[in-house]
Amino acid sequence: MEVAVVGLGITRFGHLPHLSLEELGMEAAKKALKDAGIGPGDIQIACCANVLAPNLQNEFTIGQKILWELGINKIPVINVENACSSSSSAFYLACLAIQAGAGEVALVVGVEKMLVPRKNILDAVTGAPEAAAGFSLPAAFALKANRYMHKYGVNVEDLALVAVKNRRHGSLNPFAQYREPITKEDVLNSPVIAEPLTRLSCCPQSDGAAAVVICRNSMAKRFRSRPVYVSASVLLSGSYANPPSLSTWEADFRAAEKAYAMAGVGPEDLDVVELHDAFTIAEIMHYEGLGLATVGEGVRLVKEGFTFLGGNIPVNPSGGLLSRGHPLGATGVAQVLEIALQLRGEAGVRQVKGARVGLAHCMGGELHGDARSVTIHIFST
Amino acid sequence: MEVAVVGLGITRFGHLPHLSLEELGMEAAKKALKDAGIGPGDIQIACCANVLAPNLQNEFTIGQKILWELGINKIPVINVENACSSSSSAFYLACLAIQAGAGEVALVVGVEKMLVPRKNILDAVTGAPEAAAGFSLPAAFALKANRYMHKYGVNVEDLALVAVKNRRHGSLNPFAQYREPITKEDVLNSPVIAEPLTRLSCCPQSDGAAAVVICRNSMAKRFRSRPVYVSASVLLSGSYANPPSLSTWEADFRAAEKAYAMAGVGPEDLDVVELHDAFTIAEIMHYEGLGLATVGEGVRLVKEGFTFLGGNIPVNPSGGLLSRGHPLGATGVAQVLEIALQLRGEAGVRQVKGARVGLAHCMGGELHGDARSVTIHIFST
Repeated sequence: MEVAVVGLGITRFGHLPHLSLEELGMEAAKKALKDAGIGPGDIQIACCANVLAPNLQNEFTIGQKILWELGINKIPVINVENACSSSSSAFYLACLAIQAGAGEVALVVGVEKMLVPRKNILDAVTGAPEAAAGFSLPAAFALKANRYMHKYGVNVEDLALVAVKNRRHGSLNPFAQYREPITKEDVLNSPVIAEPLTRLSCCPQSDGAAAVVICRNSMAKRFRSRPVYVSASVLLSGSYANPPSLSTWEADFRAAEKAYAMAGVGPEDLDVVELHDAFTIAEIMHYEGLGLATVGEGVRLVKEGFTFLGGNIPVNPSGGLLSRGHPLGATGVAQVLEIALQLRGEAGVRQVKGARVGLAHCMGGELHGDARSVTIHIFST
Repeated sequence: MEVAVVGLGITRFGHLPHLSLEELGMEAAKKALKDAGIGPGDIQIACCANVLAPNLQNEFTIGQKILWELGINKIPVINVENACSSSSSAFYLACLAIQAGAGEVALVVGVEKMLVPRKNILDAVTGAPEAAAGFSLPAAFALKANRYMHKYGVNVEDLALVAVKNRRHGSLNPFAQYREPITKEDVLNSPVIAEPLTRLSCCPQSDGAAAVVICRNSMAKRFRSRPVYVSASVLLSGSYANPPSLSTWEADFRAAEKAYAMAGVGPEDLDVVELHDAFTIAEIMHYEGLGLATVGEGVRLVKEGFTFLGGNIPVNPSGGLLSRGHPLGATGVAQVLEIALQLRGEAGVRQVKGARVGLAHCMGGELHGDARSVTIHIFST
């Protein structure tokens, strides 16, 4: 890839009734521009990601509205939706646009406002017959959790450790939605959402936005003395037909293989990872999809402390979806931002010492037991 | 550009209660694959455009659902929304992806299902305060029409000719929503929607889908003996601030200048044009934006017959939005398809003789009197 990340901006994630969708997007974008040391006129192409605004806010072309308010105009603007991987898909597209020569400096904004009075996101996503019949996302992940636990002799206490870890990490992140550490007992005793997943095993609904400025890598040092380079950018869909197992996402394996080949690194080279922990079980399965553990062995990584901050390969130092929160359209860029912060050495009390290679993984939606889309981005200093 | 169009597919446009969103998209995509002589496994990247499904159908990631049904999987899939220019923006992105080397063969699908029982698209787009207050799109275009008529001494009979022309063209298109020719009197006597625009001066709501297969131009002759080449692909946003006039869209002028420079042609070289005639006044203003007429002189083109089939520069031979119909997310690709058909010499009774250079123009949404996005694609044989 010929792309570098040079500007980072994020809002607080959580319940933010005082901020509109546009205000959230503007705040993140303004911070990203400021961090890159550039003005609105320097942006040559923009990709904006959002999932629920057409349903919850009756709004469209959100990108143009946010950018107009910032004084960014006359440029190509694309609005992207790819479920939970919307903004990582927007990041992928912005990288493609730079590779294709459509512009040298791009802005990627992810924004979502889910906590809206008298609206319910479960109503917003019931177009699929299985969802209308009750097979919601928590139910789909619960099915996987049950299969995984049965197949590999794992118990709910093991899974709960993921939530404990990510809350501990989130307590170190001033932008996280939940900053109070929790215990294994808290997780197990919270109300059941879909057996065996309890409320603290599921990511929350959130409002929030994140933005990054990227540029052609040859010009990156104009903006920052130590830019972060994109060494792999991969977007793939599932195979959908006859998934080999309910306890793996085969799209993860394919995306990881492609990303590692593109970056010329392997899982053993990673210093820090952000991945899509929408539910505790998901983090374990993604460990395996990314090659951090062999299949069936994922739980060991968290039981033995490897993926805690201070461990061998810290995963979700930001707190992840479980603790930082999960404003759908903002999550992918928030993950990229965390990895970039870590590689810059600017992650403060949650800094992974000497981090030089990092990976951001995002998954968008399910279809017939498979991922609708998986993105993997690998970054290096 | 290094891109060629090698496969075309479209559904009937209109009120299609028996077909779901997915079925519409599948039908268009299947036809495009068949037309290119390829199978599902040959597609390496896909972009899908839609505007209203998250609101009207409570559905997301439509692209993956359509492609799964076709047996297209494991590839990058992006869902794009850019208001009425959604699928022309998806086409732009697919061209970028090929330019960037992300794949050699891409599928672009545009799909929309607007005529849904107990749902109203006016409710779906009232997030903007001005829309909620009654300043809907017909009202915005009526404002422009009044200003234009006042400024250039044009009357409603002149504007009505655009609807007469496009209905005449649409009567020759078996996929058009409205195939009955109309008279100037029909247009003037139809109910007023927003003074001076009558119902027949406004495009209809429609269900429908269109799809194209594009590829790296060096491989195009594997698929077709006479491919159609993309010689310019431009996407731009408006400037929003202080539009110089209510009677022009300045984004059109900027986009046209860029597209002509990219293609190395001028408006005088065009043999056929599809443009965004959402309302009669819009076609006249876009003539001027595209340089087909000088500012204030657009009406002459239709009054003197230049833009009718058989004229010097036929515009909207498909029937345009006014007659073919306007399923929002499908329109941009339907325009590309019409131009490609014309350049192949396969447009049947509406063929523009000897057409070698064509242009497709699409506009997505309004913001503060300006276009949220404008796309222009120029094609040649």
